[in-house]
Amino acid sequence: MTDTGRTERTVPPPPSEETGGGLSRRALFGLAGAGVALAGGGAAVGWAVGENASSTPATGVVPFRAVHQAGIATPAQDRLHFVALDLTTTDRVAVARLLARWATAAERMTAGEETAANGAVGGNPLAPPADTGEALGLPAASLTITVGFGGSFFDKLGLQDRRPPALAELPPFAGDNLDPARSGGDLCIQACSDDPQVAVHAVRNLARIGFGTTSVRWSQLGFGRTSSTSTAQTTPRNLFGFKDGTNNVKAEEPDQLDDHVWVQPGDGPDWMTGGTYLVARRIRMHIETWDRTSLQEQEQIVGRSKGEGNPLSGTAEFDVADLNARGADGEPAIATDAHIRLASHETLNGVRILRRGYNFVDGTDGRGRLDAGLFFIAFVRDPQTQFVPMQRVLAQQDPMMEYLQHTGSAMFACPPGLAGSDYWGSALLS
Amino acid sequence: MTDTGRTERTVPPPPSEETGGGLSRRALFGLAGAGVALAGGGAAVGWAVGENASSTPATGVVPFRAVHQAGIATPAQDRLHFVALDLTTTDRVAVARLLARWATAAERMTAGEETAANGAVGGNPLAPPADTGEALGLPAASLTITVGFGGSFFDKLGLQDRRPPALAELPPFAGDNLDPARSGGDLCIQACSDDPQVAVHAVRNLARIGFGTTSVRWSQLGFGRTSSTSTAQTTPRNLFGFKDGTNNVKAEEPDQLDDHVWVQPGDGPDWMTGGTYLVARRIRMHIETWDRTSLQEQEQIVGRSKGEGNPLSGTAEFDVADLNARGADGEPAIATDAHIRLASHETLNGVRILRRGYNFVDGTDGRGRLDAGLFFIAFVRDPQTQFVPMQRVLAQQDPMMEYLQHTGSAMFACPPGLAGSDYWGSALLS
Repeated sequence: MTDTGRTERTVPPPPSEETGGGLSRRALFGLAGAGVALAGGGAAVGWAVGENASSTPATGVVPFRAVHQAGIATPAQDRLHFVALDLTTTDRVAVARLLARWATAAERMTAGEETAANGAVGGNPLAPPADTGEALGLPAASLTITVGFGGSFFDKLGLQDRRPPALAELPPFAGDNLDPARSGGDLCIQACSDDPQVAVHAVRNLARIGFGTTSVRWSQLGFGRTSSTSTAQTTPRNLFGFKDGTNNVKAEEPDQLDDHVWVQPGDGPDWMTGGTYLVARRIRMHIETWDRTSLQEQEQIVGRSKGEGNPLSGTAEFDVADLNARGADGEPAIATDAHIRLASHETLNGVRILRRGYNFVDGTDGRGRLDAGLFFIAFVRDPQTQFVPMQRVLAQQDPMMEYLQHTGSAMFACPPGLAGSDYWGSALLS
Repeated sequence: MTDTGRTERTVPPPPSEETGGGLSRRALFGLAGAGVALAGGGAAVGWAVGENASSTPATGVVPFRAVHQAGIATPAQDRLHFVALDLTTTDRVAVARLLARWATAAERMTAGEETAANGAVGGNPLAPPADTGEALGLPAASLTITVGFGGSFFDKLGLQDRRPPALAELPPFAGDNLDPARSGGDLCIQACSDDPQVAVHAVRNLARIGFGTTSVRWSQLGFGRTSSTSTAQTTPRNLFGFKDGTNNVKAEEPDQLDDHVWVQPGDGPDWMTGGTYLVARRIRMHIETWDRTSLQEQEQIVGRSKGEGNPLSGTAEFDVADLNARGADGEPAIATDAHIRLASHETLNGVRILRRGYNFVDGTDGRGRLDAGLFFIAFVRDPQTQFVPMQRVLAQQDPMMEYLQHTGSAMFACPPGLAGSDYWGSALLS
């Protein structure tokens, strides 16, 4: 690796992150913040912090251990680093060990700490630092780390019998132009934060801990959220210039979350109860073409006004879309093929999804145009009955598809939140 | 373009941004903020706003018109979108017209406005909106737009006799692995902002205005600044985990800026006086290899501690590096080939540069690793006598080069700031 004779520069093996499994600064804070008496150390403590990790204290620390994983109903942070990884082993024990190490490091990082105590600069100076250091001095910045398992995870580890039926491969959709190098993956890590350096640091350090067990398959940076997941958030805009996600499922709707997002008892294998499915689609937007479209046409395609974001049947953003309303000309106010009509729960027999996507720009496409679009992320209770029918309708009928191309696709089963000494999938792997 | 028969969807030609040439909301505010009496409209007003655009008012509006371009000595904003464009014409008049349209739109956007008054949702609903809309409702967010001309700009437009000698091609450096698709360009636009959506919006709208005259050659998103350019800023960290840019030239050092950054009278063609040269290098960091290096070795390579960032001859970040200091073992405290020694003005006969780079992650490299690193940007009075000798030394002697690869390179002549009705290069092209 070195041709300078500085052989002391490389000191394998990689550092141990096995330390710090006790009560972290975060855990102590979380308990104090929630007003829970500190009855005992260790195992079951974190579980009591919150029903789900949907609240972000003023400190910017999102509780790590809760009934559901954070980063789903958590108010959408501004920045994303998403990574899909492949297993480089079929050894179930090694994978379980990795997931436990990830949980330890992730719990620390979401509390604003390094992956290990004094990891970047402490310990043996002749050993590689346990933490890569670029987040030193930065706050927790609402970091959440959400982990999921792809279908191939179950195949590789001989766990086919525990693979949820809901995780069946997605069918091809009209107009798909999927790049295998941007699709699939045995595992995913979604890191969301209000500071991109914090999100990148988290993914990098988890990928590093995975060295020897996983390798990075693809990764995606998202520079700006395109959905609100809380009524306390303003609605952001996508790169078509429209407010996006006005009608999203929100953290403040626990019944809707149970109906549409969280896997319920009996839905599938027990280990997934309280979990959810993550569908990721990298959607390239042909923004140059869109930008040559008239305002009226853009608004008709979306079904909302561009400025206020009101449905064309109303005047204010949060007016309920009246799909039966007609304009002065007698035509439907919201066109029969408008995006918000096709994607509505009325049209889709009650289907709703929790969207949590991000705008991206990945340089250029080699043809003089920005490679930009929406990294779509949805969380659903069952992709087969929610995402698939919705995407089928949109792919076939939505005029917006003229301005889009789906270039990446992946789906992951996200287990429930972690209690006590749980790690991701401990109920699956142990 | 459409196969649905919706021919009304496309309404060429692209919109006009020729409006709004008068006093904008920004200009009025800028004057009030600077305490300058509003003596007259139009031409020369902006010039009086500031000596250089190095101060960011609390509103997040950086003055657009000043002696020097903004985005250079301006306190480094958190996010970057950089684009290199190629001319698709050799018509000097068309290029001048484009640069004037860019200036009008840029002045508006840096004031937190759309590219044209009510551009996203106003005007004729049957015409494409003048502004793409994704920054609607967002503040100015310290947006700066900095424009430069590459060597090929002069060739294409038959302006070889006005090309500054300082803009001679960079020589090859040891270890370069430059990708032509990430190098060069006839023009560049550097958009910096505290909000990446604002920076992306600015580049996108300028590229759109350029349609027919320019095409996008390459673009780079930078998610986090790696340099401070003001004493009021904390020093950020690069992806090696080290504080970067501690000894940078700062906005508060006008004499240093004149010596090392701003082109002085007599340095070259008059049209460049008050301008500067931008050197961009896309530096891939082999972070996985770096992460397997011991803390001691990392610190010896850099010449600073990882935690505090002090030079190894001192104890605090801003301690002056003592290149003659020796440790208890009698060896130089700062190694003879430490990065900060090789790049120091003492070693380089007084050379200093203003660094203004950004961390990036561009997905993966197809070999299981993140494609991450530093998008290095430096502003110098003369690249031939500043950047070239510095990079030659580093490329040949810096052990850090083992962990780096330069994968993109470009250089641009950035004209001075814009007065009154100036546009970028108006003194060159008119």
